Amino acid sequence: MAFSPLVEQLITALRCLPGVGPKSAQRMALHLLERDRDGGLYLAQMLERSLDEVGQCRMCRTLTEEDICSLCRSERRSDETLCVVETPADQIAMEQAGGFNGRYFILTGHLSPIDGIGPEALGLEQLRQRLESSDIKELILATNPTVEGEATAHYIAEMVRDLPVSVSRLAHGIPVGGELEYIDGGTLSRALAGRLPMTE
Amino acid sequence: MAFSPLVEQLITALRCLPGVGPKSAQRMALHLLERDRDGGLYLAQMLERSLDEVGQCRMCRTLTEEDICSLCRSERRSDETLCVVETPADQIAMEQAGGFNGRYFILTGHLSPIDGIGPEALGLEQLRQRLESSDIKELILATNPTVEGEATAHYIAEMVRDLPVSVSRLAHGIPVGGELEYIDGGTLSRALAGRLPMTE
Repeated sequence: MAFSPLVEQLITALRCLPGVGPKSAQRMALHLLERDRDGGLYLAQMLERSLDEVGQCRMCRTLTEEDICSLCRSERRSDETLCVVETPADQIAMEQAGGFNGRYFILTGHLSPIDGIGPEALGLEQLRQRLESSDIKELILATNPTVEGEATAHYIAEMVRDLPVSVSRLAHGIPVGGELEYIDGGTLSRALAGRLPMTE
Repeated sequence: MAFSPLVEQLITALRCLPGVGPKSAQRMALHLLERDRDGGLYLAQMLERSLDEVGQCRMCRTLTEEDICSLCRSERRSDETLCVVETPADQIAMEQAGGFNGRYFILTGHLSPIDGIGPEALGLEQLRQRLESSDIKELILATNPTVEGEATAHYIAEMVRDLPVSVSRLAHGIPVGGELEYIDGGTLSRALAGRLPMTE
């Protein structure tokens, strides 16, 4: 015994969402069918519209329904610094933190030969062309501090070595508000190695 | 700074799913746009189809795209017992437990005057008509053991008092595999009151 075929199909379809297992999918399907049909219909329409219209920005590769995204078009941003991040979510996190006024380039992933993700999939050729043809003076590599993120950062640093652009990486260290006692050894030794002179 | 307008609209639309907050909705939207466009499109189609076609069974009020659901049509079920449950999910749980071979009636909720849910919303008039015009000998009230579920059960028992049908309620007691030490007092006193003679 199960739900009717169409309800079962909807439950299966909801499983494509990340973090949604069989029980959550069932709960979502019944919630929409029993209590929020308008919300479900709106969701269906927004899914179809966004999957149809949202593509990559031609400049920075972020997700947008426009040809060139608003940040790349903005005249208030500096053209001298380019920040490389792995995903659009990382870009949003950087923007919400504040303090960066340059442009972005979104890799949409990291190098992962085992999954068949090479330099082409990350648009590294496009990144090089952009560095060659613009006024960018500093390239900030803000990939994640994971094995793959570090490898990707090193690959990019190597790739642009012959260009007149300085390359930097986000600092590693103690999170603000963190307590030394609970910080892992790797982070602590990076924080020690990267110590800065105190200024008054 | 946020995502592009259409991406933000998709994130908002995903919030209609139960248990999905702003962060999960963002993760879902980016996952679908970046990595599973086919899955997203299939989900949109299944949402539209099921919201359009799935309604209530004319007999038992469960969710189905058919006029009368397969369980109500089945000739292998007994017409002498009718089990009243709150939701289609409860019906599935009963079926998966096994041991019941009668028909169902799904209230799609419980009495809740504060939310404006009265006897009409639960189809209680339809339930009474069915009891009057059929061979049902026993009515099992399998609403949840909550305040609202109990109130709903009592209301139904009162409503059918003048009909020649015996009314029963699911037993309360110690869950199978449960340990006495960790069971709440309310359950334990119900288990004591409902004790059964041991048979060899």
